[in-house]
Amino acid sequence: MKKKINVAMIGYQFMGRAHSNAWRQVSRFFDTPFEPVMKVVCGRQEEGVRQAADTLGWQEHATSWEQVVARKDVDIVDVCTPGDSHMAISVAAAENKKVVFCEKPLANTLPEAQKMLDAVKKAGVIHMICHNYRRVPAVALARQLIQDGKIGQIYHYRGTYLQDWIVKPDFPRVWRLEKSKAGSGALGDLSSHSVDLARMLVGEIAEVAGFLKTFISERPLPDGKGKGKVDVDDAALSMVKFQDGAIGTIESTRFALGRKNYNRFEINGSKGSIAFNLERLNELELYVDEGKDSAWKTILVTEPHHPYVAGWWPPGHIIGYEHTFIHTVLDLLKAVQEQKVPSPNFEDGVRNQKVLDAHERAAASGRWEKVL
Amino acid sequence: MKKKINVAMIGYQFMGRAHSNAWRQVSRFFDTPFEPVMKVVCGRQEEGVRQAADTLGWQEHATSWEQVVARKDVDIVDVCTPGDSHMAISVAAAENKKVVFCEKPLANTLPEAQKMLDAVKKAGVIHMICHNYRRVPAVALARQLIQDGKIGQIYHYRGTYLQDWIVKPDFPRVWRLEKSKAGSGALGDLSSHSVDLARMLVGEIAEVAGFLKTFISERPLPDGKGKGKVDVDDAALSMVKFQDGAIGTIESTRFALGRKNYNRFEINGSKGSIAFNLERLNELELYVDEGKDSAWKTILVTEPHHPYVAGWWPPGHIIGYEHTFIHTVLDLLKAVQEQKVPSPNFEDGVRNQKVLDAHERAAASGRWEKVL
Amino acid sequence: MKKKINVAMIGYQFMGRAHSNAWRQVSRFFDTPFEPVMKVVCGRQEEGVRQAADTLGWQEHATSWEQVVARKDVDIVDVCTPGDSHMAISVAAAENKKVVFCEKPLANTLPEAQKMLDAVKKAGVIHMICHNYRRVPAVALARQLIQDGKIGQIYHYRGTYLQDWIVKPDFPRVWRLEKSKAGSGALGDLSSHSVDLARMLVGEIAEVAGFLKTFISERPLPDGKGKGKVDVDDAALSMVKFQDGAIGTIESTRFALGRKNYNRFEINGSKGSIAFNLERLNELELYVDEGKDSAWKTILVTEPHHPYVAGWWPPGHIIGYEHTFIHTVLDLLKAVQEQKVPSPNFEDGVRNQKVLDAHERAAASGRWEKVL
Amino acid sequence: MKKKINVAMIGYQFMGRAHSNAWRQVSRFFDTPFEPVMKVVCGRQEEGVRQAADTLGWQEHATSWEQVVARKDVDIVDVCTPGDSHMAISVAAAENKKVVFCEKPLANTLPEAQKMLDAVKKAGVIHMICHNYRRVPAVALARQLIQDGKIGQIYHYRGTYLQDWIVKPDFPRVWRLEKSKAGSGALGDLSSHSVDLARMLVGEIAEVAGFLKTFISERPLPDGKGKGKVDVDDAALSMVKFQDGAIGTIESTRFALGRKNYNRFEINGSKGSIAFNLERLNELELYVDEGKDSAWKTILVTEPHHPYVAGWWPPGHIIGYEHTFIHTVLDLLKAVQEQKVPSPNFEDGVRNQKVLDAHERAAASGRWEKVL
Repeated sequence: MKKKINVAMIGYQFMGRAHSNAWRQVSRFFDTPFEPVMKVVCGRQEEGVRQAADTLGWQEHATSWEQVVARKDVDIVDVCTPGDSHMAISVAAAENKKVVFCEKPLANTLPEAQKMLDAVKKAGVIHMICHNYRRVPAVALARQLIQDGKIGQIYHYRGTYLQDWIVKPDFPRVWRLEKSKAGSGALGDLSSHSVDLARMLVGEIAEVAGFLKTFISERPLPDGKGKGKVDVDDAALSMVKFQDGAIGTIESTRFALGRKNYNRFEINGSKGSIAFNLERLNELELYVDEGKDSAWKTILVTEPHHPYVAGWWPPGHIIGYEHTFIHTVLDLLKAVQEQKVPSPNFEDGVRNQKVLDAHERAAASGRWEKVL
Repeated sequence: MKKKINVAMIGYQFMGRAHSNAWRQVSRFFDTPFEPVMKVVCGRQEEGVRQAADTLGWQEHATSWEQVVARKDVDIVDVCTPGDSHMAISVAAAENKKVVFCEKPLANTLPEAQKMLDAVKKAGVIHMICHNYRRVPAVALARQLIQDGKIGQIYHYRGTYLQDWIVKPDFPRVWRLEKSKAGSGALGDLSSHSVDLARMLVGEIAEVAGFLKTFISERPLPDGKGKGKVDVDDAALSMVKFQDGAIGTIESTRFALGRKNYNRFEINGSKGSIAFNLERLNELELYVDEGKDSAWKTILVTEPHHPYVAGWWPPGHIIGYEHTFIHTVLDLLKAVQEQKVPSPNFEDGVRNQKVLDAHERAAASGRWEKVL
Repeated sequence: MKKKINVAMIGYQFMGRAHSNAWRQVSRFFDTPFEPVMKVVCGRQEEGVRQAADTLGWQEHATSWEQVVARKDVDIVDVCTPGDSHMAISVAAAENKKVVFCEKPLANTLPEAQKMLDAVKKAGVIHMICHNYRRVPAVALARQLIQDGKIGQIYHYRGTYLQDWIVKPDFPRVWRLEKSKAGSGALGDLSSHSVDLARMLVGEIAEVAGFLKTFISERPLPDGKGKGKVDVDDAALSMVKFQDGAIGTIESTRFALGRKNYNRFEINGSKGSIAFNLERLNELELYVDEGKDSAWKTILVTEPHHPYVAGWWPPGHIIGYEHTFIHTVLDLLKAVQEQKVPSPNFEDGVRNQKVLDAHERAAASGRWEKVL
Repeated sequence: MKKKINVAMIGYQFMGRAHSNAWRQVSRFFDTPFEPVMKVVCGRQEEGVRQAADTLGWQEHATSWEQVVARKDVDIVDVCTPGDSHMAISVAAAENKKVVFCEKPLANTLPEAQKMLDAVKKAGVIHMICHNYRRVPAVALARQLIQDGKIGQIYHYRGTYLQDWIVKPDFPRVWRLEKSKAGSGALGDLSSHSVDLARMLVGEIAEVAGFLKTFISERPLPDGKGKGKVDVDDAALSMVKFQDGAIGTIESTRFALGRKNYNRFEINGSKGSIAFNLERLNELELYVDEGKDSAWKTILVTEPHHPYVAGWWPPGHIIGYEHTFIHTVLDLLKAVQEQKVPSPNFEDGVRNQKVLDAHERAAASGRWEKVL
């Protein structure tokens, strides 16, 4: 009989749905060391969280995260709230010796992120940040190929994360467009993903030249009563220098009509190139210098020898977006079993934030800024 | 509190995994009229079915389908066994007044299929055949577009279903390559899907010219002891005439290296064309005659207004293979609520089988054969 | 100083433009054994042919092909007229000991084609049929790969040639829709290309099951005065068996909206697969079984080591449709120098016609028909 | 009888071949106001230029450009030499009242470019710079769509020009890698194209943040005797701000393995998006916000109503790289007829150079720099 492990999830919106699904599904498809029990979901609004518990399949619901993180029958605290509450919840969870699993970005500011890292280290608990795109099979395969030296020394990283949901001027000023709640706009929401992939696939970023642009600075308020200021970026462009000599561009925007979730990167090295696009997440494009036989390959990443795929379906039967969360909690459960801190963790969260911080400083100074 | 409905599943291999997932997930993402309860899974091997119950999340396991289909606490019988037992189980389930949900092909022979249809009609129960590809959002969208007249009168259907898993001569003579168990090879396994899509999207097929080819007629036995005869087709090619004047080609093979699950169709009409490929199941290609603005569109079928998508994720966040089963049981549950027989049902299963039967007769006669 | 060779071209419409360009360009890009001189263009209408000579760059024009093919200062007769005059011109050219270069299809009927072959053989002259798609670099590369054994024993050929120029019912009944002038419709115009590629890439076809369909049987006459009957096929579908055991489908139509010049084939063998689409003629898709590294490659066929490419531009600088004619006359000039009959020649023309003939017989009989 | 116009071409290498072809072909496919006569080709090496005249089809050859530009029987001087001699030849040609047609970049430095512009203005002659990619039909169509307001106000320009010909460290230090001859590396060679397209499609660039990177700073000398320094950039990255509020990234490199001639841009506006890739130059990707019908279109730019296409072949018959030069000289001939300075001209050449100059200053200062 498999050991059980109790999970509490704080927050239950978009990310809460994706995380709930991961906890529900992981042991149905993978040989996990623990059977996760979806113990309790927590949110501020009684009625909302009650319904969420029902729909998403949690045994209980609660409205006080302070009480939840202190419960003895909770082993893992999964933080899915907006960024402004990540620190308080995660620190408290760590102090209660829970495994802490936190959505990205780690926090809205670098100092907050640093405090979170300090807390989990001090408490000696397992911690993980949910940069789920690392565990797209095609992305994990890209990493393997790079680590196996298939593309050689890396020269270029070219990351774009393009969406289009706020192009229309009458789209309302939702909380994601408020700096006090969201921290930043495309930068923290989208570029942070590209930065994470860059760090995983290429290495640490040393310097950033970047700027931030808000195309539409005032929008109707969600309640229909007047207009409100947009004080976050609609688009974030940057050039980066990696510590090891590679160079890159990282660009994100919410103003690219037709691009729905276009998280794309291309990497060029001395022996080959790799390209990926999240809208076709089951495919990886690979070019390896093989002399006269060289050509771009489109790898359909659905073979049993590809990362995570053996848990799923036969070749050619594709998977989707939510599977990446399942792979993430799978590796978290394994890490708990082995009592090792997995990747990416709060250390990665802090480093990521340092790059975004350098971007913001560069946007202000008009100069290259070092990553601290 | 949602009404519960109890499901029993007979068989627990590949299809059993996909069906189990559908029953588990459907109410987590869609507003179903019932909450399905995964009551009991049934298989012949005690140990295997016990483990399957555990892994796939069924409350109980059993080894006698005869007993299971007679249980009072079972509302739906889901038949996932190989084709040679579909008839016996389905007929018994119908006689016990259960909702019968059966994997495709309906049976291994046309007479068996006909008996199954007779049984569910006589019993007056709800019945459905699991041609899950009808409920790929892109395919459902294709149907909408056709029904809305967007591509006009249909002239051509071009369906290919290509796989490559038995190209190597040392691939063993598994049960799917034995006529006594599988009924046929590529014909029943793959062409049946293309025929179902043709029937849904274009209409009834009137005549077939077809042939069947076995490239490798002897293979190593799975137990390693000698060789065995392959008496099913490796590839099935056909030309078809639809009742309404459209014409088509339907081709399936297990000998197309590089094609893993390449279920593709193209339809050409008087006003436009549609193309689809299961390996990129989130996309639909559409060409509509718009004068000088005409061009092929690649629709990323992930918008909330697309069929079934509102239950899932935001635009650009793709779904995968198993979702099509979830959509299928969703519609089955709705049909049970409304007490209406859904599509595709056993009638469709029989008609499908009649087309395959005409193909086999044509292969034998070397002539066009009418669909009976 | 390069030897000159004098060319006379009979006919000056669409194909005349493409052939003229080939004669003009070939020595500018390739090291030809002869410098072709565009001596005389011949057509029935004095004014039309005079203008064509001027626009296309021929030194003289003429209205009697009988006189032209007898001129002592003509070395090569290039036949670009509609199919119903191919025989008379080619036979006369052969009797006058000219090199004969003839557009496809060789003739409108098999007996005519046979007479043409007899004539060039009897005269002992060099002859070639212009199946220009053999000399698309990607197609020539496909052939090399097959001959090098890269895809192993061939199991499947899947050829489609789709166009859409007569979908609208008010498109006029032009000469290509009259059997007396064009011989057939999609069959001779489009399927003949697919058959030629099948013969080059796979081998000889032994049997054909085919049918012909006319969707719109009456159309406005070009002069606007009433309607005329369409007595050729709008679409031609077939299944074929090759002599060596491979099987195939060959389908052509003028009723596939959105497909402009979609001459596509896919070949599946025991070691790999190849796919090509004329609308992207600079690319070849290749899948070779390489174990875990297997994936579809998209070869950009613009490298100097690819067939014919060294004469053109650096890698990544693509070429177009008319270049295939240049490659064809290049090889014809080389054949003249070496006094060897090139491929494809009138023998190929006859064999091609035999396959089309079997298709027509199968359409009439409703049975498989042997290629004679 | 069409008026003749005499052309002299200075330089006869890669660009000389492309320009010669343009002069030879333009009147064969388009209704030009003049019939260009390929009068004389000029180069420094007697033997080389003699052979070039023969191969490329020029009536005469010469070795003194000073004499050629002064010939009375020369109407147009076509400058195809490396950038360091553009100024001297163009200024002399202008002083001799010739039409001046100059390859890009206009010169190796901004002051030289300015002198050239001054000279043609003072002489009052027609002048044009050969940015041939403006006249790819798909690019010209993109411009039409933008001018027609189809994509609305432009927010983003994303231009990359990627090649891979010097990735290998043993590739020799050719003249293009010497600053004294080539002026710069990827910047002048590749980014200049992206800048030209940005200026044509979006508007004038106001500010640039850019840097330049040389990955391999020493290479074998072409003569095999030792090594030489590479003092130009291998890659040039930049962020740009347009005068009208749009923002962009422009990146070029010779270190992107697998990218042969990957001149790609994407433009996002308030109503739609456009994307193009030179390796598939017959296609344009277009997304227009049409509500629920919105989707990316792949326009096959081969219809007679598309720019320049009517001169070529039927729909679906693609064209290639060299056709863009033919379209360019077509428009130059029309401009000569109308006595109007065409676009792009030396003014455009100077403005382009100003952007590259700002890029170089930004690379040195580490700051944003204004375009002067």
